[in-house]
Amino acid sequence: MTVSRRTMLKGGLAAGAAMAAPAVAREGTARTERWGVHELVFDGPAQGNPFVDVELAATFESSGRSIRVPGFYDGEGVYRIRFSPPEEGRWTWRSESNAAALAGQTGAFDCTAPGPGNHGPVRVSDDGFHFVHADGTPFRQIGTTAYSWALQSDAKCAETLATLKRAPFNKMRMLVFPNVQSVATDPFARTGTGPRDWDPARFDPAYFRRFEDRIVRLGELGIEADVILFHPYDKARGYSAMARTDDERYVRYAAARWGAYRNLWWSMANEYDAVESKTVADWDHLFQVLVVADPHQRLRSIHQLHLYYDHRKPWITHASIQNGAAVLDDIRAALHRDFAQKPVIFDEVVYEGNSAARWANLSGEEMVERFWWGLVGGTYVGHSETYAADRNPDFSWLGQGGSLQGSSAPRLAFLKRIMEEGPVPGIDPIQHLWNYHLGGRDGDYYLHYFGSAAPTEWRLSLPVKKGEPLYCYRVDIIDTWNMTVTPVEGPFAMARRDDYDVHDPARPTIALPGKPWIAVRVRRA
Amino acid sequence: MTVSRRTMLKGGLAAGAAMAAPAVAREGTARTERWGVHELVFDGPAQGNPFVDVELAATFESSGRSIRVPGFYDGEGVYRIRFSPPEEGRWTWRSESNAAALAGQTGAFDCTAPGPGNHGPVRVSDDGFHFVHADGTPFRQIGTTAYSWALQSDAKCAETLATLKRAPFNKMRMLVFPNVQSVATDPFARTGTGPRDWDPARFDPAYFRRFEDRIVRLGELGIEADVILFHPYDKARGYSAMARTDDERYVRYAAARWGAYRNLWWSMANEYDAVESKTVADWDHLFQVLVVADPHQRLRSIHQLHLYYDHRKPWITHASIQNGAAVLDDIRAALHRDFAQKPVIFDEVVYEGNSAARWANLSGEEMVERFWWGLVGGTYVGHSETYAADRNPDFSWLGQGGSLQGSSAPRLAFLKRIMEEGPVPGIDPIQHLWNYHLGGRDGDYYLHYFGSAAPTEWRLSLPVKKGEPLYCYRVDIIDTWNMTVTPVEGPFAMARRDDYDVHDPARPTIALPGKPWIAVRVRRA
Repeated sequence: MTVSRRTMLKGGLAAGAAMAAPAVAREGTARTERWGVHELVFDGPAQGNPFVDVELAATFESSGRSIRVPGFYDGEGVYRIRFSPPEEGRWTWRSESNAAALAGQTGAFDCTAPGPGNHGPVRVSDDGFHFVHADGTPFRQIGTTAYSWALQSDAKCAETLATLKRAPFNKMRMLVFPNVQSVATDPFARTGTGPRDWDPARFDPAYFRRFEDRIVRLGELGIEADVILFHPYDKARGYSAMARTDDERYVRYAAARWGAYRNLWWSMANEYDAVESKTVADWDHLFQVLVVADPHQRLRSIHQLHLYYDHRKPWITHASIQNGAAVLDDIRAALHRDFAQKPVIFDEVVYEGNSAARWANLSGEEMVERFWWGLVGGTYVGHSETYAADRNPDFSWLGQGGSLQGSSAPRLAFLKRIMEEGPVPGIDPIQHLWNYHLGGRDGDYYLHYFGSAAPTEWRLSLPVKKGEPLYCYRVDIIDTWNMTVTPVEGPFAMARRDDYDVHDPARPTIALPGKPWIAVRVRRA
Repeated sequence: MTVSRRTMLKGGLAAGAAMAAPAVAREGTARTERWGVHELVFDGPAQGNPFVDVELAATFESSGRSIRVPGFYDGEGVYRIRFSPPEEGRWTWRSESNAAALAGQTGAFDCTAPGPGNHGPVRVSDDGFHFVHADGTPFRQIGTTAYSWALQSDAKCAETLATLKRAPFNKMRMLVFPNVQSVATDPFARTGTGPRDWDPARFDPAYFRRFEDRIVRLGELGIEADVILFHPYDKARGYSAMARTDDERYVRYAAARWGAYRNLWWSMANEYDAVESKTVADWDHLFQVLVVADPHQRLRSIHQLHLYYDHRKPWITHASIQNGAAVLDDIRAALHRDFAQKPVIFDEVVYEGNSAARWANLSGEEMVERFWWGLVGGTYVGHSETYAADRNPDFSWLGQGGSLQGSSAPRLAFLKRIMEEGPVPGIDPIQHLWNYHLGGRDGDYYLHYFGSAAPTEWRLSLPVKKGEPLYCYRVDIIDTWNMTVTPVEGPFAMARRDDYDVHDPARPTIALPGKPWIAVRVRRA
């Protein structure tokens, strides 16, 4: 991701809230690619508490479209407004502010065609259950979680990024507020040395600048940054127990700083129902604040411990679910689509690792299994792992990032290849209300998964409505663990078996290798 | 159910809208039991269209509580107001109407203790996932469906009631508008002989009177009447495609007529998403009309074909679900509670029968199986059967009632006995998010079901949090089909097995009979 930095030079007068006449805006080069970040930089008042005192926004206009983008204070008298232009062409802008130095400034820039690899932000697909980039490229979610990776040392962050470069993951769940030992520990200005000695009304710009650098670097790798705004694991610091006004200010600040990054997703909270100080009504309120604060309308969800959030609520773009058992059966997974009527990501399904804790000791096989059940159910799954030398997950990939020790990642890369060879924008469950264990597209593509079962044959029988045309299919046997695709000889010519199903009467069953982790793929010839 | 009929005698003047002075109300005996029906009868205007022209209600007051109850026109100048008193004591009332003959009348009655067998209406239990009667008696739902049973001949209805008297069912799903061949066919006044020749603004009181007689007779058998207001199967008549005003009038009329019956449940529609003329917003609107129209606040839900309604909506008291596959796995069933956060009834799970259609050909074993999976998942299930001489489900129990030919009913009676011996108010899934297949109450009661599997042993291992006390348990092996309960010799003394589970180290497994349809019940000794 290329960030166009567009500096508004200081006016001739000293910056200050009391300054009556606005500085004249001067612009350098004026070119930002579509879905890139066009950043305006202003000098303004530094006295008082600019985080609270100063309001700043700019309205961008192009071809009759108008988008109002809030700005933010970045410390030391510097203000920024970040805008990601959704369309090519000439955009003009005008600032507004309660600080005269920042108000009434104007400018313009040209939005150019997106550069290589820039497919635009991820959106929900038109069918409502999958993801696509703004340019139509499918986004096949293979997520991972490294909660506080972005808060580690630059060296550790570099290690994490190098790991990700070689890994299949295209979404990273990451906390703003630290949950494990970190190098960056203070999102707010310190007022003393105690854990509660911080001022919720004064952000530490360096902390946020550092965090957004990690967002940008993920973007450079084509990885979505699923930024988690709140979590319940900071009781000592109390970031999840701020006053409502402070929560609102924080949400608005995050939205203004990061909403323009096209790889940004919002997760309002991790395990929201474990945050004792907030009710569902509080979370609903913060979503409403976020909807208004983020003109870029990045994807929004929230992740639970026990109490499923109502993902039908209009501000939710997709369901983010913690449930390891739901992805041990494609139909359980598919039911979540019926519930949410939106794309479903099982962002937490228990982790690969060697911990004694049951949430952290999946084998690689078990980790990969969950992805396959989820895929056949028309949903998406997230990975993480907890391997650590001292078996303390805090120091694992899950906690801090770094390197991977598990065995699932190559198999998830293989799975991603299978996804990419599959239907666009994704796989849907096929007649799961009738207990079929099939994902795909009616008539075109069928995927069946056996998990840990090791059958030696499978009856190939596909649900096809009466009157629908009958086709020939080619079949592949997929070893999801050993990463092989073995075509079955010759086509299967379908004929009606009964009122509901079709099969090839000449070869009603397929021989299977009698090993676990097998899938069968049936594609129209 | 005893209906107290309280007649308001005619005034000295001829009834009529133009009548200026209200008739003086005279009352006979004045005693109605708690949760019974206190009915006021008025003579009023018969000219014009009283269904549209005349508004009538009465406000009932007792001990500072005030309840406004709409009345309805019952034809031939007769108006009725039906009130089910929620508390014992003296109740006074005053009528209001735009017809002078009906306005300003007053009266009083004494609400006495409920009679034998009167446990009051069914409500959602305090824990939010089960049902209890108003007096606290648990209601263990074992439903059935006979869509148009109430519209058949008196002889056929008597046969249905006699069948129900011997059957375990305590809830009957029934349509107001016919879906199969019926004796009562015209809920609205006919205006000609064609299928569409009826006036949506004029109800046929005889049709509704007949229908409510069936509601009352179900109540006498202790059976809840789950009355389905709309359905998509009447395209020739078009009852599901009325104008909004007509829909509203109909909902209000049904609420005024039937809301006072304590065994009344509202199902807004069967397969709502197959009603082409209505959107989800239309259904939402009709629920809001119903909430206002029914001061008795009877239970409310809606049943779907494919598109799950959002049962989190505030006017929904419980989820009514059609899904046969969901009750082939207790965890699939339990997920519906996670989504709805309300009691869940799988009102349609495919029917027992011998039809060629896949929705109508379960064996008795398969029908019963679905109830057990649902039970272990903390939910409830509904039965019906489609056996008919000519294999046409229209003429089966499902369509018309009558007698049962299937083999599930005695096993559902046995299941009900198991439910009644179980926890109050019902069984909850236990750690289903951790893939345990257990229903019950932590520490007290555990139920596990094997379905069609026929294991010869089971490892008894119960999830118990660290620090929780350890108990001794007695175990029963339940043959759900042959209806036997076989105690396992001696108690099981629990000790910790690991951080999550407890077991009896001396006897970690239980021998099972190697037959299908077995359950194991574990109760604290």
